[in-house]
Amino acid sequence: MTSTATLDLTGQMLIAGTPVRGTGMEIRGVDPQTGNPIEPAYAYGDRSHVEGACAAAAEAFSAYRSAPIETRARFLETIAANLESIGDALVSRAHSETGLPRPRLTGEVGRTAGQLRLFAAVLREGSWNQARIDPAQPGRTPLPRPDIRQRSVPLGPVAVFGASNFPLAFSVAGGDTASALAAGCPVVVKAHDAHPGTSELVGRAITDAVASSGLPAGTFSLLYGYGPELGAALVTDPRIRAVGFTGSRAGGMALVAAAAARPEPIPVYAEMSAVNPVFLLGGALADRGAELGRAFVGSLTLGSGQFCTNPGLVIAVDGPELETFAAAAGEAVEATAPTAMLTAGIADSFRKGVAAAEREAVLVARGAQAEAPAVSCRAALFSTDATTFLASETLQAEIFGAVGVLVRCSDAAEMLRLANSLEGQLTATIHADDSDHSQARELLNVLELKAGRILFNGWPTGVEVGHAMVHGGPFPSTSDSRTTSVGARAIERFLRPVCYQDAPKQLLPSAIAEGNPDGLWRRIDGQLTKD
Amino acid sequence: MTSTATLDLTGQMLIAGTPVRGTGMEIRGVDPQTGNPIEPAYAYGDRSHVEGACAAAAEAFSAYRSAPIETRARFLETIAANLESIGDALVSRAHSETGLPRPRLTGEVGRTAGQLRLFAAVLREGSWNQARIDPAQPGRTPLPRPDIRQRSVPLGPVAVFGASNFPLAFSVAGGDTASALAAGCPVVVKAHDAHPGTSELVGRAITDAVASSGLPAGTFSLLYGYGPELGAALVTDPRIRAVGFTGSRAGGMALVAAAAARPEPIPVYAEMSAVNPVFLLGGALADRGAELGRAFVGSLTLGSGQFCTNPGLVIAVDGPELETFAAAAGEAVEATAPTAMLTAGIADSFRKGVAAAEREAVLVARGAQAEAPAVSCRAALFSTDATTFLASETLQAEIFGAVGVLVRCSDAAEMLRLANSLEGQLTATIHADDSDHSQARELLNVLELKAGRILFNGWPTGVEVGHAMVHGGPFPSTSDSRTTSVGARAIERFLRPVCYQDAPKQLLPSAIAEGNPDGLWRRIDGQLTKD
Repeated sequence: MTSTATLDLTGQMLIAGTPVRGTGMEIRGVDPQTGNPIEPAYAYGDRSHVEGACAAAAEAFSAYRSAPIETRARFLETIAANLESIGDALVSRAHSETGLPRPRLTGEVGRTAGQLRLFAAVLREGSWNQARIDPAQPGRTPLPRPDIRQRSVPLGPVAVFGASNFPLAFSVAGGDTASALAAGCPVVVKAHDAHPGTSELVGRAITDAVASSGLPAGTFSLLYGYGPELGAALVTDPRIRAVGFTGSRAGGMALVAAAAARPEPIPVYAEMSAVNPVFLLGGALADRGAELGRAFVGSLTLGSGQFCTNPGLVIAVDGPELETFAAAAGEAVEATAPTAMLTAGIADSFRKGVAAAEREAVLVARGAQAEAPAVSCRAALFSTDATTFLASETLQAEIFGAVGVLVRCSDAAEMLRLANSLEGQLTATIHADDSDHSQARELLNVLELKAGRILFNGWPTGVEVGHAMVHGGPFPSTSDSRTTSVGARAIERFLRPVCYQDAPKQLLPSAIAEGNPDGLWRRIDGQLTKD
Repeated sequence: MTSTATLDLTGQMLIAGTPVRGTGMEIRGVDPQTGNPIEPAYAYGDRSHVEGACAAAAEAFSAYRSAPIETRARFLETIAANLESIGDALVSRAHSETGLPRPRLTGEVGRTAGQLRLFAAVLREGSWNQARIDPAQPGRTPLPRPDIRQRSVPLGPVAVFGASNFPLAFSVAGGDTASALAAGCPVVVKAHDAHPGTSELVGRAITDAVASSGLPAGTFSLLYGYGPELGAALVTDPRIRAVGFTGSRAGGMALVAAAAARPEPIPVYAEMSAVNPVFLLGGALADRGAELGRAFVGSLTLGSGQFCTNPGLVIAVDGPELETFAAAAGEAVEATAPTAMLTAGIADSFRKGVAAAEREAVLVARGAQAEAPAVSCRAALFSTDATTFLASETLQAEIFGAVGVLVRCSDAAEMLRLANSLEGQLTATIHADDSDHSQARELLNVLELKAGRILFNGWPTGVEVGHAMVHGGPFPSTSDSRTTSVGARAIERFLRPVCYQDAPKQLLPSAIAEGNPDGLWRRIDGQLTKD
């Protein structure tokens, strides 16, 4: 813990354990509450740094994937402990660089450590091996059946692009890094420009854990650089075998295109944009319209609305109960104090998005005007009808920040049609009382084909890290709906199955060896057993 | 069974249960042993037929995916029984259209039916649901934990492109169709031009099963058409949600590109090309070089070499033991009678491939010359050294048919370097005695990152259908190494996870309902249980 114990930031990249100064343009963190830059400067890396990190990752891969599972699990736990041991420094630096409230960031340190520990537990439980054995049947006719055994192997080095809005949980040591390392894949992270100092602190915590766990240095590298150059070089490096990304649709699709154009295409797990529709059914509205309105605005404005699960769309049948909701939501929006956004660029896009929405829908309410221009997020609530909404690309697109659109439908059938017309979403929410269940069932039938997570009588901000979570969804919410980027199953994104036919006992990997030495749940002739 | 009981072929497509005559160019099956066309004519469909099939599939999707699992399992079993009941007619027609031997085709009927029954068993066992429950913890601090439950849902209608070389097991009712139907996805098949009559027979067997199972007619359609037009229209139809393909690299990559260029990209599971390297280690060669040479040629020439798992590449350290192998293999090749290939196009590519290889490697042996020009597959064996091989794109590429290249390495290190340089493969084989195990372990470490299936002391032709099989592998053997196209896990290709947060008990799908009504293995807080 020597290097992270002394928290002086160096402004350097970390390539296979070695601090390396970049050669390109210099960036600094910026305090979004003041607009002031924060030292030190971070110089962008170039192709030679991508080359160095990828060569080291490729070299490390064989030893890293072959290390005992217990070593890999403890390595993840060591990263978690290292992060917690510098928690105060992390929270302070992340607060300066993002403007996110300290309690939220303290929670995010815990969540990030918790994710790493979840994957350590997943590794030890062992079902990720997908161990399967179809024993030989030498007497089968017309042909004897060979012995076939299946397990999973890691894909190889993974490139990770962190998000601006979760500087810890979806960044350098976030879910993508944790799940790729758990799978046995070395990781090369491109730091997000919005929190370079936080990234260095976390990168050092990982680098220390690599060293103290006796793992090859190339298991982890952290680069800084310009996305269209360094990021593209990273994704197209032939040694990189998969990509994890959380961010904008444009950014994600650029990586998808770059990966598809490689001589050897690779999977890209891009978590991109969503408006996270919320459906208010009649019984729930009648019972607690005002309460729902206030709770909605609480979720809408959390973290200046800078959540991928921000509830940007509310859909309900028009009528007096909806007025109660709208009035309470409007009041709550007007009572919202202006808050800082993550970066000047995000604040600018937010302002433009709100202005565009104002041309196509009715403004219901806005939050208070800021005195300091840097504190730029003024919450906004719009209202429109279903026909106008369906005709407007502006209103259907995500505006990143605390802005919601209330769509008034003429009846339940129009609400269902609107649900059917939605793009893929990370989440969809239904507020329903018992009296609403038959309508809720119809909606659910549509929404489970549209979203990765469906919530009842709650709000989508806040993603539980566990075994059953799905943080994903059909395009364009992600580039690959078959996976989740949060929760235990995220490890599967970086694994592939291999089978071994008639392998000599001495050569079998332990997951599929005779006598089940690892004590795994295995499928023998299709039946789960620990025998 | 009325319509398939009378086996008069109509030359029509089957769109959601209705026979429809195409409007375009007419094709006929061709007997590859004579070159003669076989009646009836099949007219290509156009965009309106794609439109009709996709609209029907989209309409059928909701009812089909919601049908009881037992209904879906019996439907698959009914298709299997329908195929078996017309087995003789299927074998006759397929023999006429492909030239493949009757016993092989009889086996393929059984395998195709077996695949369908395997998926029926997989459906009933239920682990494909991936049922997971993280129960609520209302007292957790700082925040209560919600109830989160995960299950899998089908992607939606699937387009299937059958292969020429397995007119039953990888065609209209082949593995892709069986696994997609099992997952709850309606299927639209584009028939392969090389066996249109076989396709019609199988299509009617499925259509009959749809009707007798009381399922929506749009659950299955069968189209005939020109790949670059009708096939492209099918893959780019917005209602199609995934694609299964078995065939050439060019054909597969065209579909991958078309799918990636859609406004909403979809997964393409293309099983393409492989040379399926075979490594002969010193102990095994010394012990049974001649026997291995003969067995190799048996696998190489099976079905005129028209297997995706055909062993096209043999790698060994040069020396007297290898001469014994090469001499026996050469003799066996020379003793090979000429056989028909599937189509004139395939025979033409084979001839050109052999001619090109002859310019870059030494010809060791050729099979007998054909008297009838249609019986065109003359087996061929070439020999070269590792340096020449690594410099030659021609020798490294797959030549579809019975042609093998023996690469002589100077030592074990060169053999390992060659293994490291290989492209992704469906299979890799190691022939090793106990004395070879330390070398075999080193090779295995490389090959499990290169191939989907690794065999010991056997031959790769013949793919066992079971729970542990992987028929897949890194690019370019497939477009998605994370999956298998044969065996139980093929169902996963057409599913995605969804989670339900705090869903009312009455609205929960039965797989994740209270009390485990389906009796599934489920993961509660990460632990497998049937409670």
